[in-house]
Amino acid sequence: MLRNDLLLRALKNEEVTRPPVWMMRQAGRYLPEYQELRKKYDFFTRVQTPELACAITLQPVDIIGVDAAILFSDILVIPQAMGMTVLMEEGRGPLLPETILGTKDIERLETEVESKLQYVFNAISLIKKELNDRVPLIGFAGAPFTLLCYMVEGKGSKGFEKAKAFCVSQPDLAHRLLSKITKATISYLKAQATAGTDVIQVFDSWSGLLSPDDFDQFAGKYLIEIAEALAPVVPVILFPKGSNYALGALSANPAVSGIGIDWGIRAEEARSVTKGRVALQGNFDPTHLFKPVSDIRNEVHKMIDSFGARSYIANLGHGILPNVPVEHARAFVDAVKEYKA
Amino acid sequence: MLRNDLLLRALKNEEVTRPPVWMMRQAGRYLPEYQELRKKYDFFTRVQTPELACAITLQPVDIIGVDAAILFSDILVIPQAMGMTVLMEEGRGPLLPETILGTKDIERLETEVESKLQYVFNAISLIKKELNDRVPLIGFAGAPFTLLCYMVEGKGSKGFEKAKAFCVSQPDLAHRLLSKITKATISYLKAQATAGTDVIQVFDSWSGLLSPDDFDQFAGKYLIEIAEALAPVVPVILFPKGSNYALGALSANPAVSGIGIDWGIRAEEARSVTKGRVALQGNFDPTHLFKPVSDIRNEVHKMIDSFGARSYIANLGHGILPNVPVEHARAFVDAVKEYKA
Repeated sequence: MLRNDLLLRALKNEEVTRPPVWMMRQAGRYLPEYQELRKKYDFFTRVQTPELACAITLQPVDIIGVDAAILFSDILVIPQAMGMTVLMEEGRGPLLPETILGTKDIERLETEVESKLQYVFNAISLIKKELNDRVPLIGFAGAPFTLLCYMVEGKGSKGFEKAKAFCVSQPDLAHRLLSKITKATISYLKAQATAGTDVIQVFDSWSGLLSPDDFDQFAGKYLIEIAEALAPVVPVILFPKGSNYALGALSANPAVSGIGIDWGIRAEEARSVTKGRVALQGNFDPTHLFKPVSDIRNEVHKMIDSFGARSYIANLGHGILPNVPVEHARAFVDAVKEYKA
Repeated sequence: MLRNDLLLRALKNEEVTRPPVWMMRQAGRYLPEYQELRKKYDFFTRVQTPELACAITLQPVDIIGVDAAILFSDILVIPQAMGMTVLMEEGRGPLLPETILGTKDIERLETEVESKLQYVFNAISLIKKELNDRVPLIGFAGAPFTLLCYMVEGKGSKGFEKAKAFCVSQPDLAHRLLSKITKATISYLKAQATAGTDVIQVFDSWSGLLSPDDFDQFAGKYLIEIAEALAPVVPVILFPKGSNYALGALSANPAVSGIGIDWGIRAEEARSVTKGRVALQGNFDPTHLFKPVSDIRNEVHKMIDSFGARSYIANLGHGILPNVPVEHARAFVDAVKEYKA
């Protein structure tokens, strides 16, 4: 039995004394303890060595006192396990030198990825043991559309125009690729749950680049497929960043327990379109962590007031920035913990 | 008297036989005729030589047959005229080596920019002469928040986190900077109108990175200030890209004649929140120009049906991509021209 089950209670719309809090990309980046490990081991060594992934996953629980751990890993382990080369240069983002161009590249991709991702499941087992039921563990994967972006574009991009043009000009090919990614992702996430994750979050970091119609076709469909496959096993949080137009439809699906939102929508509006059907997670603008600590505290309290304490998970609207002072991150977490309705 | 006044009629909510069409960044990029000039003259030579700016501005009118010309220039001529160094490396985006860090940098900025921008007004006079009343000429400027982004960040960025952190952690300083940019921009745009532009568009390319509250404070306030100063002289289109949460409030101000929208919002929703108070401009996803020509035609017709032919300006939701085939750009324009309600 988890001693701190605030996150699970929020996802089940149960009563809570205060909302749970965690921070996207909390494992790493802004923590000096993480930077130490970063100097010693390269990115994929940190990801693929269960002891390192475990240590990094636990750092924010021990140092900042968040209400949930999130697995330290990367969304690109799926393209990698499907057979693509993924290079990660420190501070420069990912590079996939052989991009998906046509049918043959898609045929070649494997969907039986579990054996290659055993290191993730080993990390999860180790983390669960070390957590010792203090807080729940969140597992995650990248959403199919977001993974397609990297697999087609080959690297990070402001607008992922090449990937979007691929989808709209060759939709059959795009759907074949998205289906294969979805299949691999579902078996990966199920295996994560079997290994011990208590909640799953699916990151659609680039879905906001799509129009509402394209979202339905190339992103939403696959998010729902994943949620429906996972919901019988573990609560699912979807995070379609920037796709605030999709909140109504996604929240109407009973397989979705929570939806992450960025700062582009007011709490009242997000509550109104989701009609209390899901827990909402977010949506503090990460740049606001550069404000003075007293301002952060006030803003966090205002944010919880706006969302309401129930069915709400306090979080940032996207990843924490690497140069945020640790004391400011802690102020964010402390402000949630001291919240009184 | 303009022989083609469709754009002006759309902005005045007058009856039209069909909507006007132009394309953002139509002057340049995807046209081989522009690429020829690009090989011979560097970026600021093209911008600062009235004959070249005129030739580039007229190309899409002559080649593609759009219903409005837009001045070939750049939003960064304002920071440059205010005293900052702006470098433009072909294909690599802008670089401002000395960024705004504090009070002294802001104090140093000049707001009397007209004498330095005489080349723009000369280009406008020349363009008007060459256009010879065929179609209206759109002048433009970058919005204060978007210019602040470059002036503080020093270069393009996915999230402009440094610029946003500057705003939220030092709001007094940010407002001082935004006020100076606004002052310079208003006198610049008034001088553009005096020189002959028929319509003004203000590009807030990065306002969508702001939360609704931050938008009101750091972007919307200054957009409205500019619109109110210009409206007595010339119709104003605001384009706060990605800030669809702001459509309702901006459209309520009588100084705003039109609002540009990106593809992140459905036509019906945009019409509903703006309540017929402004013309809407957009919102074709530029990556859809990679679809087959027949699909482009169908989608354009569907788009006009959704917005309605009146009080509507057919356009892309952001800039045309450089590698779009000219025939696809032409198909977009032709599809609007052949539209029958």
